[in-house]
Amino acid sequence: MNHPSSITLCEVGLRDGLQNEPTILTTDQKVEILRGLVDAGFKVIEVGSFMHPVKVPQMANTDDVFKAIGGEIPGVQLRALIPNKRGVDRAVACGCKKVKLNVSASKMHNIKNLNRTPAESVAGFKEACDAAAAAGIEISGSISMPFASPWEGRIPVSDVDEIIEAYLNVGINEISLSDASGMATPYGVYDLCSHVREKYPQCTWWLHFHNTRGLAVANIITAMAAGMTQFDSSFGGLGGCPFVPGAAGNVSTEDVLHLCEEENIETGIDIVKIIEISKNLKGMLGHSLESYILRAGRSKDLIAAKSS
Amino acid sequence: MNHPSSITLCEVGLRDGLQNEPTILTTDQKVEILRGLVDAGFKVIEVGSFMHPVKVPQMANTDDVFKAIGGEIPGVQLRALIPNKRGVDRAVACGCKKVKLNVSASKMHNIKNLNRTPAESVAGFKEACDAAAAAGIEISGSISMPFASPWEGRIPVSDVDEIIEAYLNVGINEISLSDASGMATPYGVYDLCSHVREKYPQCTWWLHFHNTRGLAVANIITAMAAGMTQFDSSFGGLGGCPFVPGAAGNVSTEDVLHLCEEENIETGIDIVKIIEISKNLKGMLGHSLESYILRAGRSKDLIAAKSS
Repeated sequence: MNHPSSITLCEVGLRDGLQNEPTILTTDQKVEILRGLVDAGFKVIEVGSFMHPVKVPQMANTDDVFKAIGGEIPGVQLRALIPNKRGVDRAVACGCKKVKLNVSASKMHNIKNLNRTPAESVAGFKEACDAAAAAGIEISGSISMPFASPWEGRIPVSDVDEIIEAYLNVGINEISLSDASGMATPYGVYDLCSHVREKYPQCTWWLHFHNTRGLAVANIITAMAAGMTQFDSSFGGLGGCPFVPGAAGNVSTEDVLHLCEEENIETGIDIVKIIEISKNLKGMLGHSLESYILRAGRSKDLIAAKSS
Repeated sequence: MNHPSSITLCEVGLRDGLQNEPTILTTDQKVEILRGLVDAGFKVIEVGSFMHPVKVPQMANTDDVFKAIGGEIPGVQLRALIPNKRGVDRAVACGCKKVKLNVSASKMHNIKNLNRTPAESVAGFKEACDAAAAAGIEISGSISMPFASPWEGRIPVSDVDEIIEAYLNVGINEISLSDASGMATPYGVYDLCSHVREKYPQCTWWLHFHNTRGLAVANIITAMAAGMTQFDSSFGGLGGCPFVPGAAGNVSTEDVLHLCEEENIETGIDIVKIIEISKNLKGMLGHSLESYILRAGRSKDLIAAKSS
């Protein structure tokens, strides 16, 4: 079966994971985790977001986290999610060098909330893009629910194309396809990934899967079969689903790393160090996490125990 | 991506699921579940096992379950796991018409426990096969841990071939590849499935995955890509791992049905009825179950709720 010999993982637990937690981690705790992720080998990390602090209090100290590390860590891409130009301003102020915008692929969802189509929303990102360019900040875009949404079910491919083209029009060609509602399914993922890769060869793609309905790893497998090589994951499977209270979160970093370890897919990340980070996190958050590997251990450890 | 338009599921929760539970269900409870499974559309069901009642007390009333339904249900294959010829005798006595033997693919495991190789163990099944043939009982075989085991790690393909050939020698050509230790990985599954299908076209195959390390659905996807169409699953994801106390169990029936529903893969089984069975089971067993769909609901239900 077609699969890459190496993939790049972006750890999004500090953002998409922690933003769903009732416990708010301090700047020091976040910096410690961030340093641990870098030490484990991560080269791309989503550190937090610059959303309104009242709306997402868990992310209110994102600026402080960036300041605490002097804005950057050599050789590592640290990115933050932003809602608009104000996010770029905060990035500039705290030294963050990479930001990510987001739009819902659901026309109904977007029109209901913002009274414009997703493509119109993206066109409105022009101001943020110009400000980022002027400040020398890299900017990327995310499309939320491009596979299916609670409003439409399957999203027409032409709707996704329209959003991608709107992103290209404002100068963004690094795009994340984000299954925030956990409704993506393996063959749907394969089809959309194959389509966008062929139609937009000038783009760089990220895939972001939630394990809401247990399909995240299967979706990664079919995305890889379609040639994708960049994936988000979250330590301990932290995260959630805005539409399903109590649902499972993002695909777990340790679980993806274990898959890669077993299948000889290079990630450059030390799974043992990540397992330790997730174990510590369990203590900080005071509840068990969703990761299968935290629970069952690596296959290699079981073999070592039996053969010793 | 290559996938079948329909698959056959065997519900194994009454056997592999319940045998891991501290609560022992009564004959009446099991018969009620069994009738529910048939009503939901299952055409293949593993009802229980004829192991020693002291060793597996949860299965001690398997004979009574068969007797209660008069041994069979028209149009439905009801099978039981057996250890040896004694199992055939019990099947004959209670009217069960189909049995399944099992051997470990791990040479070390088998030699340690039984002082013979897996192929020698299978050769020893001759007596059971002859008794089944004489009684008009269908007999099939399972290979436990053919992908990897805690003793060897990856199992050499030649070892699996040897066991398959031993099964063919005693007259068994319906064979289950059973990842009981949850160590199978997607590309390993693809490779072994492709190999056995090509080398042994006279065989009928079943795939049995545990979700110990979160890979069961991904393994089903790659097994389907290799042409496999028959899978075991367990309601509510019940089951366990003999080597990892507290690990996740078999792949959940509702989760597989939901995948199939979303991808238009025909199963003939009503997912709504199965979700009800799993919900009731939760009450009977007194603990939460592993199924993602029990927790998050179907994508279709979310869409219906949002659009209403």
